[in-house]
Formats: sequence, C-alpha cells, structure tokens
Amino acid sequence: MERSAAPYVAGIDIGGTNTVFGIVSENGDVLCQDSVKTQTYGDIKDYVDTVAGRLEFMIETVGGKEKVRGMGICAPLGNYYSGNIENAANLPWKGIIPLASLFEKTLGIPVKLTNDADAAAMGEMIYGVAHGMKDFIMLTLGTGVGSGIVANGQLIYGSDGFAGELGHVIVRRDGRPCGCGRKGCLETYCSALGVANTAREFLKERSEKSLLRTIALDSITSKDVFDAAKSGDELAKAVFDFTGNILGEAVADFIAFTSPEAVIFFGGLVNAGDLLFKPMRESVDKNVLYTYKGKTKLLVSSLRGADAALLGASALGWEA
Amino acid sequence: MERSAAPYVAGIDIGGTNTVFGIVSENGDVLCQDSVKTQTYGDIKDYVDTVAGRLEFMIETVGGKEKVRGMGICAPLGNYYSGNIENAANLPWKGIIPLASLFEKTLGIPVKLTNDADAAAMGEMIYGVAHGMKDFIMLTLGTGVGSGIVANGQLIYGSDGFAGELGHVIVRRDGRPCGCGRKGCLETYCSALGVANTAREFLKERSEKSLLRTIALDSITSKDVFDAAKSGDELAKAVFDFTGNILGEAVADFIAFTSPEAVIFFGGLVNAGDLLFKPMRESVDKNVLYTYKGKTKLLVSSLRGADAALLGASALGWEA
Repeated sequence: MERSAAPYVAGIDIGGTNTVFGIVSENGDVLCQDSVKTQTYGDIKDYVDTVAGRLEFMIETVGGKEKVRGMGICAPLGNYYSGNIENAANLPWKGIIPLASLFEKTLGIPVKLTNDADAAAMGEMIYGVAHGMKDFIMLTLGTGVGSGIVANGQLIYGSDGFAGELGHVIVRRDGRPCGCGRKGCLETYCSALGVANTAREFLKERSEKSLLRTIALDSITSKDVFDAAKSGDELAKAVFDFTGNILGEAVADFIAFTSPEAVIFFGGLVNAGDLLFKPMRESVDKNVLYTYKGKTKLLVSSLRGADAALLGASALGWEA
Repeated sequence: MERSAAPYVAGIDIGGTNTVFGIVSENGDVLCQDSVKTQTYGDIKDYVDTVAGRLEFMIETVGGKEKVRGMGICAPLGNYYSGNIENAANLPWKGIIPLASLFEKTLGIPVKLTNDADAAAMGEMIYGVAHGMKDFIMLTLGTGVGSGIVANGQLIYGSDGFAGELGHVIVRRDGRPCGCGRKGCLETYCSALGVANTAREFLKERSEKSLLRTIALDSITSKDVFDAAKSGDELAKAVFDFTGNILGEAVADFIAFTSPEAVIFFGGLVNAGDLLFKPMRESVDKNVLYTYKGKTKLLVSSLRGADAALLGASALGWEA
C-alpha cells in the first residue's frame, strides 16, 4: 500500500506533566493510547527511546508502518518549520531539541511538530466542529490564552513559525501585568488565572456579600468563581460578565483580521458555559464592525474529552 | 501560445474620480495605459463598453488576447469571491454590480476583482518590496486605513471576501467616533483625517505657539501638519509622534496575529517619512511581544508612483 493512502496516523501530546501518545483513524477513533510522565526523562534520548519503543509496538499492532501516514507531535513552543522545541520552560530538556527529526529517525515515518493551540485547530479541522471550514480561529482558554488561525484551509505559522499569539494582544493599555513582561494582554483577563484575579479585584473593590469571601483571597481559583456563580452569587456572576465582555471585544477585533467562518473556544474556561458565553456573544455583537455583524459562528470545541490533545497532535500526521 | 504562458496582464483601477486601465508585463512595466472619469458613466453598461472597448484596442496592440494571461480589477468594496461590487458609496452604480463577469464576457479573458488594499498587497508581492515574501501585511494610510494580509503566500480573503479591515481594529476604547458608527478605530487616529483631527485637538488643548494657528481650524489638512512639522513646528511634530505611537501599538498587535516577515506601508501619509516612521518604529519595538522583537521589517511600498494602483490591480491578473 502507498503510504499516502494509509488509514491511520500516530500522535504525541507532550505536556509538562504527561506525555500521551497513540494511533488514530480517519474518523478520529483512538485505536490505542498510552502515556508516560514527562518529567521522569531528564535525558531526551531516554525519552525518545521509551516513547518510540511503545509507539513501534502500537504500529505493529495496527498492521505495520505502511498503515501509518505520518505522525504529529504537539508540545509547548513547538516550531512547525524547524521541528524543534526551544527553551520550553516546563519541559525537562533545555536548549533546542530537534524533536521531529529524532522521532522521524527512530520510527521511520514522517513527523510534524507544532504547538498546543495550532494542534487543537488542526484537530478541530480534521475531526471536529471545524470540519469542512477553510477560515476559522481557535482560542484556547486555559491557564493562559493560546490561538491557532486557519485561513484558506491552512494553518498560519507566519514567517518564523510563531504566528497566532492572540493571548498577547493588548486589550487594556497599561492594564494588568502579564507574564510576558508587558501590560494588559488578553490572557491577563480571559484565562483561568485572569478570572481568579478579577474575582480578587472585585472582592477588594466592592463591599457586597459573596460566597467567595469564605475563601482566602490568594487561593481563589476560576473553579471557585464558577461554583459560586452557578449558585447564583452576584459578584461571581459579575466576574464572568466582565470576562465575557473583554473576550467579546477582543474577538470582534480578531474577526476584522481574517473574517473567519467561526471562532472556536477550547480549554478549561469553556466549562463556564453561558456564564461566559452569554456576555461574550453580546459583546461581540455590540463591538464587531457592521460588515461582519451576525456572520461569525461562536462555537465550542467538539473535542473536549480526554482524547482532545491526542487527536489534535495526530491531526498533523495527515499532512505528512 | 497557451494562455498560462502569456507574458502580459491587464488591469483596471476604479476610483471615485478616475478609472485607470492598461497592460502590464511580468517585470511591472506599464506597456500602455489610459483613463476615464468614473462619474461620467451613470450607466454601468456604458462604462463597461467604453473601458472594454479601449482595452480591446490595447490588447490588439500588444499582440492579441492570447498574449494576455488575465485581468485584475480593484474597486472600493470589491469582493474577490463574488466578483461583485456592492453599494460602493463613492461610485455611480448602486446595488450589486457583477463587474468581473461583465468584463469577462465582453473581453473574453479571465477577470478577478478585489478591493484597493488587497490589490496593493498583490502588487507589492508580484512587483514590489514584498517580492518573494510569503507572509506580510500591507497597511494603506490614506484618507482612511485599509489593509491586505498575505499568509502562506496567499491573500487572506476570509469566509466572505471581507477579511483585513485593520483600519477598524479598536485602538482606544471609547475613543474618537468613526464613520463606521463605532469609537476608537485605528483609522480615526492614523489616517490623513486622523492626523488633521489630532492637530485640531492639540491646538485646542495646548497653548503653545504653532504655525498651524494661522490656518482656520476646520480647514487644516494632514499636508498642513506635515509642512509645519518639516519647518520644525513643535506642536506639528507632536502630532506625528502621537500618530506614530498609536500606529506602532496597533502594528505590534498585528504582528502577534500572523508573525509577518514585513509590514509594508502605502498611501499619502507615508510621505511624512521619519516624522511618522521614527515614533512608529520606537512604538513597535516597545510594544511588541518578546517572541517577535526585532524580527519584523517595517517597509515603505516601492510602488509609490502614479502607476501603483494600476500595478496592484493588474497583479491579480496573473492568478487568472
């Protein structure tokens, strides 16, 4: 069989805690998967040998290398063009690691690498709600905010492989300090940490009663705010209104960039549901340029289960 | 000769005042050109017959239809996907005009249509400073602010053909009123009109001497501000510092979107030179995310002559 007609792809999702890998079919069925603790492997050679060894076993199980079109890897700061990860703060390997070529040599199948948000966008396009779409933006609302932008049916990697840092677009000049060293980035407001920080601000500035006042200020999480808002806590609901409003303002500007068919939301904060999405939709509608009004779908990822990251990584394998 | 190997393209640049059309070679040499007054032709059929008639004559002159690969048209609100212009306020034809197909039928060569800023980007990519680039953003700083975005070597038209309205990204929440009905759009600050408005604001708010105080407030133009700044007028220079600073903030955010190799500036305001570019460069450097620092070229269009618009329109003909 020609490899270009092979029915499966392999994928590796590398996180700071776990590395999940497996084999996926064209429909997005995970045929087999396994995982290792990333931090156990301080030496990159041990890591590649271990993961590749277990993947080789899986590949044999599904019928051998000729059944596998290619492999995709997603990792923090993964660069699509070079196939390297560079100085990823929460991975055990320092400096520049040629991850794609290490796995390609060991496994003998084509390997592509990208970062988490771009992999999520690819996963959505191949297996999820963006199937058949040529223009959409993926926003991952987790601890931080990441993004993957698809235009003309292709991911935009930009001149250096680092396009799509929409979490670091400035939404408030001289706003909250960001980990990037600047102020007012989208992710300082519309991430899980942003929601917790907004709750802290509101609790200090306002005097109204709130369930959140029973929690030590420093230990409040976005989950606490969500639980309180679900119980009808007005201050907690106001936190989501504030967050949704800023997110909507940002999304309205993003729409003016690529006029996407949809903006698709992924990540922990998406669990807040209408608490976040209702004010966000209202804010998009209020802030978007008339040219785009009512056109752009605002969707939640359909790959929300435990397999989402693995599916995203594997999606890149079809390109190979 | 196969049309795909034909050495020339035709182009039509439709403006509210003039329509310029002609034949262009692969090197960007304008072999012949002509123009008509757009407003003379209230009837679209008369307009197409006149322009197409003169173009047919030009096409015969260069060796006939088989020597012409295709034709590009640029017009306000031109939609690439449909080939229509829709309700363009400063053109004499109301409603939806299927301009590309009207010319295609009359001339018998393939025709593509787009808007001014996208045509400028195509022109720059085929004949200008963006030659060989796969990722760049074109910003046209004229009466308003337009943009064309190229990623992966392709123009981004988006889901509806209207991508790239970067003049309407919000740079100041609740800022200056914009013609689009919203507030704080980039073009209310960083266009020719924006510069004149900033000068008016500064003259009212400040008491310092200025050459601009000899001009009636309502009739100040960006050219007046430029002339004053060139003569060393401090208030006029402060207007360009203010404009360049906001433009740089916006460009820094645009870079986080597509990580372009270059941002290319075009249009009347570009004549301000370092008065605008020095504060703009400083502002980009100060505001851009560390990932992109020092990477993006900030360039001036190389198609600044009278032929620029025609070259931009014709560039689309190579796609046909």
